[in-house]
Amino acid sequence: MAKAKNILFIMFDQLRWDYLSCYGHPHLHTPNIDRLAAKGVRFDRAYIQSPICGSSRMSTYTGRYVHSHGASWNGIPLKVGELTMGDHLRDAGMGCWLVGKTHMKADAEGMARLGLEPDSLIGARVAECGFDVFERDDGMRPQGPGGFYDDRGALKYNEYLRERGYGGDNPWHDHANSGIDEEGNVLSGWFLKNSDQPANIAEKDSETPYLTRRGMAFIEQATEPWCCHLSYIKPHWPYVVPEPYAGMYGRQDILPPILSQEEFDNAHPVLKGFMTTPFSEAFRRREVRDAVIPAYMGLIKQCDDQMGVLFKWLEETGRMDDTMIVVTSDHGDFLGDHWMGEKMFFHDTSVRVPLIIYDPSPEADATRGTVCDELVECIDLVPTFVEVAGGAVPDHIVEGRSLLPILHGKAAGTGRDYVICEYDYSASPLADKLGLSVREAVMFMIATKKWKLIHCEGGFRPILFDLENDPDELVDLGDSDAHAEVIAEMYDKLFAWTRRPSQRTTRSAAQLEAMRRQSRQRGVMIGVYDENDVPLEFTIHYRGRKAEDKRQR
Amino acid sequence: MAKAKNILFIMFDQLRWDYLSCYGHPHLHTPNIDRLAAKGVRFDRAYIQSPICGSSRMSTYTGRYVHSHGASWNGIPLKVGELTMGDHLRDAGMGCWLVGKTHMKADAEGMARLGLEPDSLIGARVAECGFDVFERDDGMRPQGPGGFYDDRGALKYNEYLRERGYGGDNPWHDHANSGIDEEGNVLSGWFLKNSDQPANIAEKDSETPYLTRRGMAFIEQATEPWCCHLSYIKPHWPYVVPEPYAGMYGRQDILPPILSQEEFDNAHPVLKGFMTTPFSEAFRRREVRDAVIPAYMGLIKQCDDQMGVLFKWLEETGRMDDTMIVVTSDHGDFLGDHWMGEKMFFHDTSVRVPLIIYDPSPEADATRGTVCDELVECIDLVPTFVEVAGGAVPDHIVEGRSLLPILHGKAAGTGRDYVICEYDYSASPLADKLGLSVREAVMFMIATKKWKLIHCEGGFRPILFDLENDPDELVDLGDSDAHAEVIAEMYDKLFAWTRRPSQRTTRSAAQLEAMRRQSRQRGVMIGVYDENDVPLEFTIHYRGRKAEDKRQR
Repeated sequence: MAKAKNILFIMFDQLRWDYLSCYGHPHLHTPNIDRLAAKGVRFDRAYIQSPICGSSRMSTYTGRYVHSHGASWNGIPLKVGELTMGDHLRDAGMGCWLVGKTHMKADAEGMARLGLEPDSLIGARVAECGFDVFERDDGMRPQGPGGFYDDRGALKYNEYLRERGYGGDNPWHDHANSGIDEEGNVLSGWFLKNSDQPANIAEKDSETPYLTRRGMAFIEQATEPWCCHLSYIKPHWPYVVPEPYAGMYGRQDILPPILSQEEFDNAHPVLKGFMTTPFSEAFRRREVRDAVIPAYMGLIKQCDDQMGVLFKWLEETGRMDDTMIVVTSDHGDFLGDHWMGEKMFFHDTSVRVPLIIYDPSPEADATRGTVCDELVECIDLVPTFVEVAGGAVPDHIVEGRSLLPILHGKAAGTGRDYVICEYDYSASPLADKLGLSVREAVMFMIATKKWKLIHCEGGFRPILFDLENDPDELVDLGDSDAHAEVIAEMYDKLFAWTRRPSQRTTRSAAQLEAMRRQSRQRGVMIGVYDENDVPLEFTIHYRGRKAEDKRQR
Repeated sequence: MAKAKNILFIMFDQLRWDYLSCYGHPHLHTPNIDRLAAKGVRFDRAYIQSPICGSSRMSTYTGRYVHSHGASWNGIPLKVGELTMGDHLRDAGMGCWLVGKTHMKADAEGMARLGLEPDSLIGARVAECGFDVFERDDGMRPQGPGGFYDDRGALKYNEYLRERGYGGDNPWHDHANSGIDEEGNVLSGWFLKNSDQPANIAEKDSETPYLTRRGMAFIEQATEPWCCHLSYIKPHWPYVVPEPYAGMYGRQDILPPILSQEEFDNAHPVLKGFMTTPFSEAFRRREVRDAVIPAYMGLIKQCDDQMGVLFKWLEETGRMDDTMIVVTSDHGDFLGDHWMGEKMFFHDTSVRVPLIIYDPSPEADATRGTVCDELVECIDLVPTFVEVAGGAVPDHIVEGRSLLPILHGKAAGTGRDYVICEYDYSASPLADKLGLSVREAVMFMIATKKWKLIHCEGGFRPILFDLENDPDELVDLGDSDAHAEVIAEMYDKLFAWTRRPSQRTTRSAAQLEAMRRQSRQRGVMIGVYDENDVPLEFTIHYRGRKAEDKRQR
């Protein structure tokens, strides 16, 4: 084993923390990911910074909170000037490449204003969230009356499918994400009732194996030290998986939803809003869960098998010895827990994600197979990677903290006593339903190991969960008088966090400290009565001068 | 009178709000500025956003709080991507030009990263805080063992002085900002004892008349609608003024300092830190105040006379009829009040500034000569100017509020119930003295008409002033149990302010609201059990499809 030369940064999309066997799922066996955990450190309390794809990723890629970078919902562009993993790694001499999904929305207006062409080297990086693109595949290619959601969605993958003989104008939809009936009708994966159908595609042509091969293709041709963000689309919806995975799980494998009637009846108005969206109401139906959850489990099983393929290949080619491997997710999926579908709230079901890091270096031998119970955030990956690349972490920009000391057994945690997650639903239909302005449809979560407080803008009371005594988060203590002090303490922490100087990104702490001694060096004399108040060296340019010409007296 | 076509945006540097006769100074008569106030609106509670040149200006120029733009001290660059007055005005079809000082520090690193050349049109604007530069003159050309404070300081002005026959390598220092003794020795203006000496320069060659002429030169040649930021250096130190102003005021004109012994003895530790800097201790000396304040008053009197020259010329050339004129300052000067010199704290002495706006349009006739007692902030100027230029205020970027409704008698105030001011002293020697990290050496002020609360990071208690009953701010109620509720309320307001989504600048409120209805338009179906759950129009692309080729069944 050597010091990690390269980083393989694997992200799944919408993978719940508890749907892997190493995280305790009783029926879903994921031996390949478990094996990576046995060789690395499994982080048991890893939190993402926003429970929605785009914003979670923008935080993971920038190493900064959503409130700092501002790309607070899918489709809100990451503004020009925000630095990412790619910028920091290239500064440290490591390439940073994308294979798969980022959900990056380029700030076209900001780029145009600065004259940045999207096809220039700099412009392309800015537009692609700092990555150099081997293949971008955001997966989805939905189509509605207003056109495609994303003109570039599944573009190359659709080409691949066509080459493989899959027909129609959108084989991504018709084959990879739909079933088929006896008459040859496409059973669209967009409709949850079709989730129990096998995808009408050969398993090896489906998205997950395709991206594994694309990842290997990248690695095979890479020469310089690299970080490869191999970013899978699944198990994100459409929830459809090909055989043999489609038939692998059934009703008997579905865990009962985590919920209580009281939780629903007494729900905080904003939470009730989320519980009563169409997608949450759908997941209250037994037939939805029965169709979706086995497919979701099959998709994860396929992901795990692909990890087996990938890790075996890395071993065989010797790359396992010099490559750090990270496996994580961008958020979970409620799947009916807490009366909700999708991911847009702050229960652990959604905001806690799997995070496994394997470091090949001998320094990490002491921690192999261990579980870290400390609070970590996905913004911690950027500084971790920068350290692996041999760079200095620009901590006036990056708000995460390196996990390398934990991986090397030199620290128990990051020194952090809370995690932050944010959700901005100002651009969601729910904001209309709740009658909230774009300023009000914003939420913050702050959690210690013991307490989780959720603050909803718009004049609502807070939500509070006792994570120790109520790990399922079924009892909201936000209006409990007995918890007023805890609530005040959590608010104090949140307030301190909001006051952080997150935009003071053009000067480092060391530079600011050096400035403390600078102005006199440059001759600025403030409040000096006469030349004897100040050491000679500072005033030498102001002493003993003779006025030349134009004497007024 | 017509609708304003152009904007003359005049800023003085370090001009106290109460050192103009229209704001009540008993001995300093400023009839020209007073006359402008009589023709426009005089804002009596205008607050700057940081009590230091650079940061105050970055807020005024961007229309954003310091916590939002991050350029929180002199020398901390304004990061690439922050939009300014110039960007917004050009979008609205109005040019935006600089004549004088901005204290802008370009983000050279950010520019290099994006490939922006400082000599390109876009690069120059980014480097110059969004202005097109007619003449930049930041005034100061100090020199110390480490070289010049600013290599470009007073560059063109020094050229002018040399052409006029003023000799030496730095006539800005030797003539414009120093006196001379009988032997021809330069009496440097950097030493306060020399403030009672007349500057060794003909009055018309000194900085204030020079900049007036440069402003008129700009206006004379301008064709398209313009905003001209005529930005004077004085009455900022070095406190030296030529005759006849040098002899105009004496000891008898100096107002007693606003202070109390108890204020000093019981000062909050951070405030005590500011009270005991060398520049504050200097202003405790009678001889310093006796030398400096008459010079400071003379400098202001000269500024006012120059306003007379300028306004007369504008009248004679008909420009007074179509030009909005704004007179303001970037902060005040303690001059010994509250035991301090300089400006780095939050008493009104420093953070309240004069603000007079004259609008030639008939809509403003109703408010001519009135005084507005409502809370306004200097960030309000950007949206005011954008409205004058006929643009729409991008209020997802700009945090100020237009003053045009006040000027046109359509609103009493801006609807704001507090003002914010911030000071970051992490790069100041005082942070070392108080033993504070760069995270801790940061302060926030929040003030209503009644209360002013100051929060100092680093674990200190707050400072509280009762502005109604103690307008001189001599009694700090920050540790008064009787005021615990007020303190909590002020902290609540500050907390709400810190949670504002200040970085969500790439999508407007209207765009976010439109997005609420967009995803189904683009075919994203979440939680839809079957096709009958959704109106036909949204699912048309998913219905009735036949799988082509590669049928798996």
